[in-house]
Amino acid sequence: MSVSIDDVTRAAARLAGRIRRTPVLEVSPELFLKLELTQHTGSFKVRGGFNRALAAGDLPAAGLIAASGGNHGLAVAHAARELGVRAEIFVPTVSSPVKVAGLRALGAEVTQTGAVYAEAYEASLKRAAETGALEVHAYDQAEVVAGQGTAGLELLEQTGGVDTVLVAVGGGGLLGGIVAALDGRARVVAVEPERIPTLDRALAAGGPVRVEVGGIAADSLGASRIGAIGYGLARAAGVRGVLVGDEDIAAARLELWRSFRVAAEYGGAAAYAALRCGAYVPAPGERVAVVVCGGNTDPSTLV
Amino acid sequence: MSVSIDDVTRAAARLAGRIRRTPVLEVSPELFLKLELTQHTGSFKVRGGFNRALAAGDLPAAGLIAASGGNHGLAVAHAARELGVRAEIFVPTVSSPVKVAGLRALGAEVTQTGAVYAEAYEASLKRAAETGALEVHAYDQAEVVAGQGTAGLELLEQTGGVDTVLVAVGGGGLLGGIVAALDGRARVVAVEPERIPTLDRALAAGGPVRVEVGGIAADSLGASRIGAIGYGLARAAGVRGVLVGDEDIAAARLELWRSFRVAAEYGGAAAYAALRCGAYVPAPGERVAVVVCGGNTDPSTLV
Ligand SMILES: Cc1ncc(COP(=O)(O)O)c(C=O)c1O
Ligand SMILES: Cc1ncc(COP(=O)(O)O)c(C=O)c1O
Repeated sequence: MSVSIDDVTRAAARLAGRIRRTPVLEVSPELFLKLELTQHTGSFKVRGGFNRALAAGDLPAAGLIAASGGNHGLAVAHAARELGVRAEIFVPTVSSPVKVAGLRALGAEVTQTGAVYAEAYEASLKRAAETGALEVHAYDQAEVVAGQGTAGLELLEQTGGVDTVLVAVGGGGLLGGIVAALDGRARVVAVEPERIPTLDRALAAGGPVRVEVGGIAADSLGASRIGAIGYGLARAAGVRGVLVGDEDIAAARLELWRSFRVAAEYGGAAAYAALRCGAYVPAPGERVAVVVCGGNTDPSTLV
Repeated sequence: MSVSIDDVTRAAARLAGRIRRTPVLEVSPELFLKLELTQHTGSFKVRGGFNRALAAGDLPAAGLIAASGGNHGLAVAHAARELGVRAEIFVPTVSSPVKVAGLRALGAEVTQTGAVYAEAYEASLKRAAETGALEVHAYDQAEVVAGQGTAGLELLEQTGGVDTVLVAVGGGGLLGGIVAALDGRARVVAVEPERIPTLDRALAAGGPVRVEVGGIAADSLGASRIGAIGYGLARAAGVRGVLVGDEDIAAARLELWRSFRVAAEYGGAAAYAALRCGAYVPAPGERVAVVVCGGNTDPSTLV
């Protein structure tokens, strides 16, 4: 299963009027920031979740179901509310009360179960089989990947084209979508925290492998294995991957705030970190776009 | 002395490559947010201060001088640094150490003098007469007003035209600039805190009058009298003024954060407050733009 530029174009048509066309900050003629943190629920995730729901046509009475204590859960809850259907979100028992409250505030039913994400995910699949709810995966479903890719289409239109797009990677849904959307019109650089190298290890191993998850960006980039779709697209496109340290991510996040008043979460600052710390060095005159993919952060930590 | 659309167009040409073309967030086909908080130093003020300096041609050895403990001071310090000249900024003795440190971080020489702003301002004029530095007023100089207006030109281009622009008012430099830039192509609504009604009182009195300054937005909108240029432009254009309460400003600021991850300062949220609290009610289908004019805020107060 893969995702093509046509899938992304169809997703964009479906999502019109449902998602925000997020603004692009032109820092210089060579640097653009795609402010995806201004998207509904504070991250790009609503693109993929919403596209999956819209592509399904008539939704089951049981509505949507997903496993995620983070941005994906918020995105699915938002889409369900907009569509007037139920959302059931499974989160591990360790999830913070703030996150659970955030999901409930969007009208979702929240089930806390399992010590880790994988257990919550298994429980959500079992429940979906019982209720018939539409399962919305956080990154490894074609409609989800295609939806994330719509950010890439917008970016090309808004900038008039760039040479390179820097994208953070968790399960690789955003990466895969952007690769499909750009369809060779710009180079994609995949940025991962050193402590969550899902793509890096997969490229080395010749296929998705499980990695240990840790560090500052784990709550958004903390997939333990890259999805098959994102991996396949990245591999076929010859995507280059770079790694950034946690200190680089933290410093990049503070710089986004201080220089641009952009309040990104750690995962949302990872791609910018690659530029800032020199993990990716553009050639002179190279036009680079950075996807600032999320802003669900405690702003008091920006002071 | 007034300011015309030609002055604003000339300012835009001068400022090209010096200021950021700040992005516009399209919330819906009827609502646009001009994210001026992403401008250098976190507010639109750099447009006016920089234009004043560039319009002067060869700058005096003593550089730029201004009185402001707030965004104007940061803007002038930034412009001076970019131009490689000195900046001397006068602030009242009550100014917070954080603000003084912010000015110094931009390389400005800071003089703390006078119990209130007016005294610091008088001292800055005296000093300018001694040193020959170029005085940059916070709002009541033609080049400053013309520079602020460049945000209005961008807005028209970026949105393809709107019916109405909501603008916050302190000394009226931004307001005047936007009125000149739009030149009748859109209606301008001036938004003031109830506790700082400089335009409202001036329109009632038939000319600028001194008002008492108070409330939540005083650090950015707290001019005690509207400038002659802004007043003249607003009056000639028949600008409508609306007042918003401090609670409305605070609620609008929180909504900007929660719904869009836009971290505005209080003054930067005042124009949005007018929409949110119903002080300005657009007609059905009316296309409205809101200038979110500043983001120099303590982000921990957004939690
Ligand atoms: C802010 C943010 N950035 C990046 C990602 C990673 O996305 P993906 O799993 O599609 O690689 C996520 C996932 O939740 C996220 O929330
Ligand atoms: C954020 C912000 N908004 C609005 C204003 C008011 O601008 P003006 O004095 O041009 O009316 C200021 C002035 O400092 C400001 O800093």
